Parts: sequence; C-alpha cells; structure tokens
Amino acid sequence: MGVRVAVAGASGYAGGELLRLLAAHPGLDVVAATAHGQAGVPLGQVHPQLVSYGDLILGNTTVDELAKAELVFLALPHGASAGLAAQLPSSVKIVDLGADFRLRDAAAWQRYYGGSHAGSWTYGLPELPGQRAEIAAADRVANTGCYAVAVILALAPLIAAGLIEPTDVVVVASSGTSGAGRSAKANLLGSEVMSDLSAYKVGAHQHVPEILQATGAETLSMTPVLAPMPRGILAAVTARPTTAGVTAEDVLAVLSRAYADEPFVHVLLAGRQPHTAATFGSNSAHLQAAVDLSSGRVILTSAIDNLGKGAAGQAVQNANLMLGMDETAGLSANGVAP
Amino acid sequence: MGVRVAVAGASGYAGGELLRLLAAHPGLDVVAATAHGQAGVPLGQVHPQLVSYGDLILGNTTVDELAKAELVFLALPHGASAGLAAQLPSSVKIVDLGADFRLRDAAAWQRYYGGSHAGSWTYGLPELPGQRAEIAAADRVANTGCYAVAVILALAPLIAAGLIEPTDVVVVASSGTSGAGRSAKANLLGSEVMSDLSAYKVGAHQHVPEILQATGAETLSMTPVLAPMPRGILAAVTARPTTAGVTAEDVLAVLSRAYADEPFVHVLLAGRQPHTAATFGSNSAHLQAAVDLSSGRVILTSAIDNLGKGAAGQAVQNANLMLGMDETAGLSANGVAP
Amino acid sequence: MGVRVAVAGASGYAGGELLRLLAAHPGLDVVAATAHGQAGVPLGQVHPQLVSYGDLILGNTTVDELAKAELVFLALPHGASAGLAAQLPSSVKIVDLGADFRLRDAAAWQRYYGGSHAGSWTYGLPELPGQRAEIAAADRVANTGCYAVAVILALAPLIAAGLIEPTDVVVVASSGTSGAGRSAKANLLGSEVMSDLSAYKVGAHQHVPEILQATGAETLSMTPVLAPMPRGILAAVTARPTTAGVTAEDVLAVLSRAYADEPFVHVLLAGRQPHTAATFGSNSAHLQAAVDLSSGRVILTSAIDNLGKGAAGQAVQNANLMLGMDETAGLSANGVAP
Amino acid sequence: MGVRVAVAGASGYAGGELLRLLAAHPGLDVVAATAHGQAGVPLGQVHPQLVSYGDLILGNTTVDELAKAELVFLALPHGASAGLAAQLPSSVKIVDLGADFRLRDAAAWQRYYGGSHAGSWTYGLPELPGQRAEIAAADRVANTGCYAVAVILALAPLIAAGLIEPTDVVVVASSGTSGAGRSAKANLLGSEVMSDLSAYKVGAHQHVPEILQATGAETLSMTPVLAPMPRGILAAVTARPTTAGVTAEDVLAVLSRAYADEPFVHVLLAGRQPHTAATFGSNSAHLQAAVDLSSGRVILTSAIDNLGKGAAGQAVQNANLMLGMDETAGLSANGVAP
Repeated sequence: MGVRVAVAGASGYAGGELLRLLAAHPGLDVVAATAHGQAGVPLGQVHPQLVSYGDLILGNTTVDELAKAELVFLALPHGASAGLAAQLPSSVKIVDLGADFRLRDAAAWQRYYGGSHAGSWTYGLPELPGQRAEIAAADRVANTGCYAVAVILALAPLIAAGLIEPTDVVVVASSGTSGAGRSAKANLLGSEVMSDLSAYKVGAHQHVPEILQATGAETLSMTPVLAPMPRGILAAVTARPTTAGVTAEDVLAVLSRAYADEPFVHVLLAGRQPHTAATFGSNSAHLQAAVDLSSGRVILTSAIDNLGKGAAGQAVQNANLMLGMDETAGLSANGVAP
Repeated sequence: MGVRVAVAGASGYAGGELLRLLAAHPGLDVVAATAHGQAGVPLGQVHPQLVSYGDLILGNTTVDELAKAELVFLALPHGASAGLAAQLPSSVKIVDLGADFRLRDAAAWQRYYGGSHAGSWTYGLPELPGQRAEIAAADRVANTGCYAVAVILALAPLIAAGLIEPTDVVVVASSGTSGAGRSAKANLLGSEVMSDLSAYKVGAHQHVPEILQATGAETLSMTPVLAPMPRGILAAVTARPTTAGVTAEDVLAVLSRAYADEPFVHVLLAGRQPHTAATFGSNSAHLQAAVDLSSGRVILTSAIDNLGKGAAGQAVQNANLMLGMDETAGLSANGVAP
Repeated sequence: MGVRVAVAGASGYAGGELLRLLAAHPGLDVVAATAHGQAGVPLGQVHPQLVSYGDLILGNTTVDELAKAELVFLALPHGASAGLAAQLPSSVKIVDLGADFRLRDAAAWQRYYGGSHAGSWTYGLPELPGQRAEIAAADRVANTGCYAVAVILALAPLIAAGLIEPTDVVVVASSGTSGAGRSAKANLLGSEVMSDLSAYKVGAHQHVPEILQATGAETLSMTPVLAPMPRGILAAVTARPTTAGVTAEDVLAVLSRAYADEPFVHVLLAGRQPHTAATFGSNSAHLQAAVDLSSGRVILTSAIDNLGKGAAGQAVQNANLMLGMDETAGLSANGVAP
Repeated sequence: MGVRVAVAGASGYAGGELLRLLAAHPGLDVVAATAHGQAGVPLGQVHPQLVSYGDLILGNTTVDELAKAELVFLALPHGASAGLAAQLPSSVKIVDLGADFRLRDAAAWQRYYGGSHAGSWTYGLPELPGQRAEIAAADRVANTGCYAVAVILALAPLIAAGLIEPTDVVVVASSGTSGAGRSAKANLLGSEVMSDLSAYKVGAHQHVPEILQATGAETLSMTPVLAPMPRGILAAVTARPTTAGVTAEDVLAVLSRAYADEPFVHVLLAGRQPHTAATFGSNSAHLQAAVDLSSGRVILTSAIDNLGKGAAGQAVQNANLMLGMDETAGLSANGVAP
C-alpha cells in the first residue's frame, strides 16, 4: 500500500498526465480524482487513454474529497488553488501546479496576474541550487510554470556563473497546444491551429516574473508562440555575454557542470540541437548553446514536454522529494518518439 | 541481473521503441543493440529521445554480437531475418518483428512477398485462442504485422462465433508514417505527408494473407492509407452478418467475452469510438462495433499504436511469455495523450 | 459591374472559402456577407486570411439583407436553409450548401436527418449525366454533400456501366477537421485531433441517401473518419464486380470516358494514387482504381478538398452554370501544395 | 499571347509554387520548365497538384532550353545560379530565387556562404524605399531570402525612423518544412518533423547579412526553428527602442505609414496577431508590434508564406515590375485557410 494521493483538476490535460504517471508509480496510490464540471463521470470517458483508471469515478473538488489523501496535486486554473489550499488540513501535503503561490513579490503578481496575491510557497524546481533540500523539507510546493522551466534551466547557471548579462535577456518560446488547456475555444480548434504559428501575450506573459525571481535576471523580453503540435516547448533564450570572447564551449562547460548529476537535465553534445519530440512523455529537459556569429549573443535552446517536466512530471518529482522517496520514481528520462 | 536481450535493427523506429520499453523493463537487460549502417555510432545520436541509452554504441548485426543474448529481437527489413535466424544458436530465443516467418502457406508468401518462403514460426498474437500457451512454449516467435494486429483482434472472435460471413470482408486501415520506416524517401518528407492522406498498395498489401490465416476469413479486400501523424493505426473492418438481425450489441457481446481477461484489448462502451491518440505509446488495442443502417454490414473499428501493440509492445509481450515472466512486464495499457 | 451575390453563413469555413473564391471571381460581386452571431463585426476579424475583404462588415442573416443579391449562397447549418429560402423572392437564385433540399425521398430524409422534409431542388453535381443542363436551367440548386461528391464521382459511372454490383458498396472516407465546422467543441480542439484518427457516425452518416439517389446504388456501408489535417477528403469505395474478370484497366477506361471533358475530375495514370494535398484549395477531384488481389473487389480511391469541390468550389461552379457564365470562372483545377 | 517565361528548378517546392502562380497569370506563358534530375518526366508526376500542367514534360536545365524565354526564373540550389546566369543572353531577364547575387559585400558572402562571390544584382524587395523603381529598371533581380522577407519588412521602417537601435537586434523565426527543400533526408521525414520543434544553424543563418544590408541593422542574432507544418514563417523580431517611452502605437504608426499603399503588406489592428495560416498560398505579409512589459524591448511579429512572399510570389511580383505589368498580376493577397 503506497502513499495516498489525490488529483484535483483531473479532467484537464495536466491532470490526465498526472494520472498516467501515477498509474505507473511504485509508491503512490490515487484515492481521489476530482473535476468541477464532470463529477460523477467515469474517467474513461474523459481520458480514454487511461484505461487502467477507466472506471474511476470523478469526484467533486471539495476539501472532504481531497483530504482523504496524504498528498494532493492541484491542477486547477490559475486562481483556484489558493482558496482550496487554505482549507486543506496542514497535515496534507500539497503540490500546486497553478501559479498562485509561485511569486514572492506581490507587486509582480499584481502586474502580471492582477487580483490579490495569495503568498508564496517553496518553488518547485529541484535543479536550482539548494532547492532540492527545501522541497524535501516543505509541505507546500509551488510547481514551476511550463515556459519558466524551459527558460530557467538554460538561464540560471549562466547568470550565476557571471557569463552573461542579467539584463536584456530575450526569450522566444513556442508551445504545443495542450499548454493552452482543454476548454472549448474556437481559436484552439484543430482547423485553426494545425499548419499555423502565431504569437500571443507578446511581451506580457505571466511566467516572466518567476523567471526573474529564480534566475536573478533583471529584465527579460518574452514572446510566446503557439505551435501546431499537441505537446512540447522549445525556448530560444539569448543574452549578451559579460565579456567579448565567450564561446559556446564556455557556456556548455557551465551547463554541463551544473547538471552533471541531474537525472532529467541533459546537455547535448556539440552539433545536436534539442528536439521537443525527444522529450515527449518524459520528464527530461534537453539543452544546447551557441554564440551568434553577427552579434556575439549567447543563444541557449531548451526543449521540454510542457505536460512532463513543465507540469505533471515535475509535480511527481516534487512529490517524491516531499515524501522522501526516490526522486525519479514513476518518471522516465526517455521520450516517446517518433 | 535480468535476462540478457539484444535488438537487431536498433536504428529504426521499431528498434527505438523496443529499446524504450526495454529501458523500463524490470527483468530484461539490453546487452547488444545493432544496426547495419550505423555500427559504432552512440545510440543518443540515432534516438535522441533515449537518453538512458545515450552512450550505448551500436554494434554490427552479426551472429556473434547477437549471440551474447538469451533472447534476440529482430527488427529488420522484411527478408533479412531468415538468414540471420538460421545462424543463431538454437539456445537463443528469437522474436522476429519482420514478416519472414509469419505465413504457413508458401503460395501465399509467393503471391504477396515473392522470393522463397523461409518457413513459419509460432504466430505471436497471444490474444488468439490457444496462442498464449504456444508462444510460452516456443523458442521462435513471429510477431504479427501492424495492420494485421488491428484487423485480427476485431475480426477473429466474430468469425469464430459465426456472427459474420468469412468471405468478402472489407478493410480500410490508416497508419501513421512511422509504419513506412525511417529510410529517407522523398514521398515521406514532412512537407509531403503533413496535411495529406493517400492510399498505397491498394488491394495488394502483404498483411492480408496473415489475416486470413489467423482469422479463418476466406477473402478480404484491403486498402491501406498513409495518415498525417507519426503513429497509430485505425482500421475499419466490415463484414456481412450471417443472419439478418445481428445488432451492434450482439457483436459487442462476442468481443467483450473474447477479451474479458485480456490486459491490452479494450472493448469500448457504447457511444465511444477508438482514437489512435489514446493508444499512443501503449500496448493497447481499442475496439468498437456498429451495424450499418443502409447495408446491415457489421462495422468494426480498431485502434492501436503501430509501434506499440503493432510492433515493439507486442514483441515484449511475446518475450515475456517465452521467458515465463509476467506477460505485462514493462508494458503499459495507458496511452500518452494528448 | 458583375452579378450581385450574397453569402449567408459567412463566418464559417465554407463561407470563408466562398468569399475567397468570390474575391477572385471575374464576374461576381459580393454585396452582402451575413453571419447570425457576428453581425457588425468586420470580416478581417473572422477570416484574417481574407485581407481583401478585411473591412467588410458582416450583416444579419435576414431576407432583406440577402435580397440585395441576384444570387445567394446559403452556407448555413443543416435545417436553417429551408425557412430562409421560403422567404427569398423567386427572382433571387439560390445555391444551398446545406442538406435541406438534396433528397427527393422524404422517408430517407426522415431516417437520416429526422424532422420534416423541406422538399428537393436540382442536385448540384454537374458531372452527373444530364445534370449540367438541369443546373443551368434551375433557380434553386442543392449543393452535394462533401463526402457525397468524393463517393459519387467514383461510383456513378461504374454502376451506370454495369461494371459493379449496386448492392453492398462499402465506403470508408476520411475528412479533415474543417468538415466538422467551426463551433468551439472540446473534441475538435487541436490537442485532441492532431496525431489522432477516429471514426464517427459509423454506419449512419447522412450523406448515404444522397449517394444512393445519385448513383443508383441500393445499399452502401459508410464509415466516416476524422483525420488530423485541416482539409481534404479521401474516400475508399469498394464494390463487387458484376463479372469475375473485371480489371483495373476496365474500370479506368469507364472513368476516363466519363470524365474526358470534365475540367475538374482527373483520372490518374496507372501507379499514381490520389493525394488530398494535391487538391488543397482547388475544385478538383482525383480518382484511381484497383482490383483487390484477395477478394476481387473493385477499389476506387477519390480525393477532393472538402471546402473546394466538396463545398465552396462546387457552389461557385453551380452558380456559374446558373448564371450562364463560363463554368470554370473563378475556380482553379490546381491545388496549393505542399 | 503573353510574355514567354521559363522556370529552372521546376521540380522543387519553390518551382512548383511558381508554376501554380504562372498557370493563373494573365500575362505570362510558361514555355519551359526544367529540372536537372527529372528531365523527360511529365510534371504531373512531380507536382500532382498542378493538373493544368500535368502533361508538360520537364526539360534539362540548359541555356538553350531557358533561352526560349524572355524572362527566366531560377529556382535552383544556392550556388547553381551564377554559372547559368553568366551564359544566358543579356536580352533574357532573370529573377533568381537563390542567394548567389543578393549580397554586395564579398566578405559577408565569404563568411556565411563560403566560396567565391558571384557579385550582386538588384535586391528584389519592392516594398523597400526606392526599390520598386530599381526593380522595374533591372534585367537581373535577386529575390530576397524567405526569412529575410519576414524580418526586413518588420525591421526596416523602424530603423529608418530612428525608433529602434540598429544594434543587438534579436530574431527568432520558425519556418515550415518546405523551406528545407525537397531532397530526401532522414531528418526531414514526416515521422521526425511532425510534433517536433527544433532549432538549426543557430546564430549562423545565411540570411543575416542580407537583412543587415537591407535594413541598416548593425548586428542581429538569428535563431531559425523548424516547425511542424508544410509552409509559413513566423518571425519574432526584437530591438531596443532608442528612447524610453516608445509605445506599440508609435511603432504601429511608423509601420502603417510605411505600408499604407502596399498591396501585400498588412499591419494588423491592435489585438490581432499574425497567423502563418492566414498567409498560406498568398503573397501577403502580416505585421504586428508590442512593447515588452519587463524589458521595454520592441517586439515585432511577422508572418508570411515562405513559398509565397518568401519565394515564388515575390518572384512573380518582381517579374511583373520588370516587365511593366500590374505588380499584382497573378498574385493574391488572400490566404487559403483553414
């Protein structure tokens, strides 16, 4: 008998991926899966791919339902976690996949999200220096945003090493459509998104402040792009080197040192670029670096599965740490490709 | 220490998927992975998604290399298995993902494949009546063709039950592009296949004779279609009912009875149609049935992952049986979606 | 100054494609484009691809608005055309892209659509024998359904020539997602439909009765499949030959003769299969034939653009005939590929 | 009888799109279409979508064959145009879709292409100030690179207006796979590119020097990305404003003024982002601007069809100018969507 866990928001894409991972997890047992709008419906109708949970009946997202668990995953729309978390007993550990508790700075919250700031929890990116131990000691962890994972993993070690300027970082990152959620919207219809690329929330995406907070970058320009594929994020992260002669090898040396012992962050060999397809279904991030021939800018490329390391995979990794389990339990570094 | 296995043809799509499954298998250890054209290359360059085998060096596809293993998976182009198999010691068990040993009838081989017929091995579809025990007792097993899996699972129980006519079965089945292999061909370029559907080998596909052999169908019309997605097969299988009043419920009752205890074959609830996306990365087959309003024909729909239950997943399932392991070891019934 | 035309239902996919064709048409001028839910909105916000109509304001779908035109295209949901058509002055010609007036048989209407039967208009497929003249003489024309176009063009000449049996025809046809319309539905989200194939309305699709009516087929089994691409229909149509020795050449000879003078129906050379991508954006249909090695069934493959020859292109072709213009005006036989 | 034109490189994607446009052009007649490797083959086998040229036999790419024409389009691999152009009579006008004659600076050529620099022709982007008249007066015109079109149209007016810094421009631009050509390469197989994003030639793409040359930018960082769709480029172009208070409205005012009379460049209304799908098959570019909340960077987004305004459409536009025809003849501003 494993540790009892619950998933709130089980009908969405992140909730579904969580359940897929939990079904194969050696130490966690799902005791409740809830969904506001579809309580009473068997999970097989909502996630036909999850045949091993096909008969599980979705519950209501209530404190009573979730408090059956020792650890709760909240995969709810932004803004919905805070209220629920406040009512859950302190004995129940929580991993929040939403944004409510990611930011320490109330002004930044106000600027990018609006509304009142709920506070901040331990930031759930174990690969940041010192963060693994904090997560292991925490009862409340705020998962990192999907774009933020891809950018922070590339950026943080270089700023820490003083190799790049912390100002005027420029990010253009493309995401598969599952990042936009499962609500029925005309602009997300297959007919609209297949064969199409378009930018959105240009210069105003809400993952910027958590990237600044986690990396020490001072300003960062962000252009998110919706890409015609179900999953995956590819981020191009560029920054000016602090000294003129910085080479790709210098950058790669820093990245390789930072992630030498990490099971899920892979710095690629020279000549190989990250492919989102290679991260599909995995908890991996793939990184590469170059220096621009014309401008001398450092260009980092970073690929993850937005539902894996960008959401559900990361959440399980955090839960493993919080529960004192093997950090990699139930997770795979290998992608499903092609 | 697990059972030693080897993969011949590791650079192809089926070979890559096999390695992905083997990396997570609790009882099998990969001791050799070979690839004719890419011997000496680290696997990470060929399958960037398989980071846990990134440093494994591909070997030559030789008897010596493969004979290190207790069980060998042959994932080679059709026609290449027979020669190799003849040279492997009889103590080495073999699962052949190719077609060489699927057919008992030399004339059928001649008609659909041409060239000399190598003979026949135990047919590797455990869900056929009596077949599980035969596979468990065999040292040589011929995996089922990808289209054949999807069609046979739908068709066999109904012919056996006498519910449909065994003549004039009509199949139209669409496959993702990985079914066409990894050779660089202009007609398989992304630019050509995205946003496109086209039929190929119309009325002449080589999986027809194994379907006839396995189901007892006497004639079967087959139209394969190349679909704009990496993986997945959706087969529509239609046949005339033996008596006029056959209903969808009758058909579903037969299917449900046939697969009640099967871990990987799922007869869907009324109103749900199989989605290839729900089988992505899994070893599952999803089935549904209807009766046509105009013609009264029985229409079965069947979805699998062509690299999963259609190739690598099925091969692992067979290997598990041949080695006396849990049939489901290292396999998942749950798909990776969206 | 050209003939004044109006488009009702301009916000949908067929409506948008109609406007694209009309923008390039040498003899037709759009005087009104209406959309129930988006009246008052500039067309550029609804169809950003139609920059030449970017400032055109969508009107209400009312008799007054549409009666400005000499010819009205109705691209409305099934069931909405009949009421509107009844109120339009008889001097206004109408091409209805909906199903309301396609069927002569009220019982067939009842069976496949339900509700009361509005009556029947001239059937708008000029390539049927004698139909071109009827359309040219008509003031009211019912456009053919999208699947129906693809199937009828393949089937009708062979039944007429007595080469195939008119019973037990089996059709499996896949369509791009634009065929499912532009309403925001969760099952049509890009995340759901990309990388997926699934069947729907199995054995019960409403285009069956019009195929029977137009071809003389007596029964026809129909399996529609949703394919992961925005546009295109590929139909596989199989039927038993009337005599044993029928060859692909026999079939192609009949088709070639039937369409020798047709500008939009192309019987492909031996060895070439229809590709939906080759019809993208065109008014063309591509046809090929084979005879199945196992069953002897004739297998016809047929590709169209569901929004082209399957909807808007066909509608313009019919309008050209009704107005005494060159039948090909404003239409292209060439597809946009890749 | 129109002006006689020839297409060298007719078997590639740009060549095919050229022929599609030429088939509908009111003033140009194709007298030769050549392809090195496929001479003697009917065009219908190479471009099945071009049914109106289905029987045209591809010729050899020789001076004699091309000199039949009054104007020749060269759609050849980079490096192949110079030799051929040197031999064509001076009376034959040439539009080169390749890179050979784009750069004035031999050192820049050497740096990004290598090999000897063939010289420079009139740069074929009519929307640049003064360029339209130069093109109209020229007999030899070098078409703009596909990424370059998308970037230059966004960037040039802002640098000219002194609104943004000409140094440290950062571009991340994604292209559909047709931009990578039609050669059979394993990394461009549909199975590899569908559901995948990856960067390539990071910081080293050969379109950078022509962007610098055409815009006055001094340095530019460039990250090209391969996107899972057949066509389309979306470029995100960011630059620091010259003064702190620059707003999106300021930027849009400059762009709107620059392109007020341009038939193919469309500055979108506030709140609308460019979609590549809206430019599919057209000669249009769609532009939008924003100012980043964190960094104050100006972010321009720009969408084109890489085979349209990025190649064949632009070539026809240039040919129209060179021949004194209506600049828009044979071209459409409207895209084919969805």
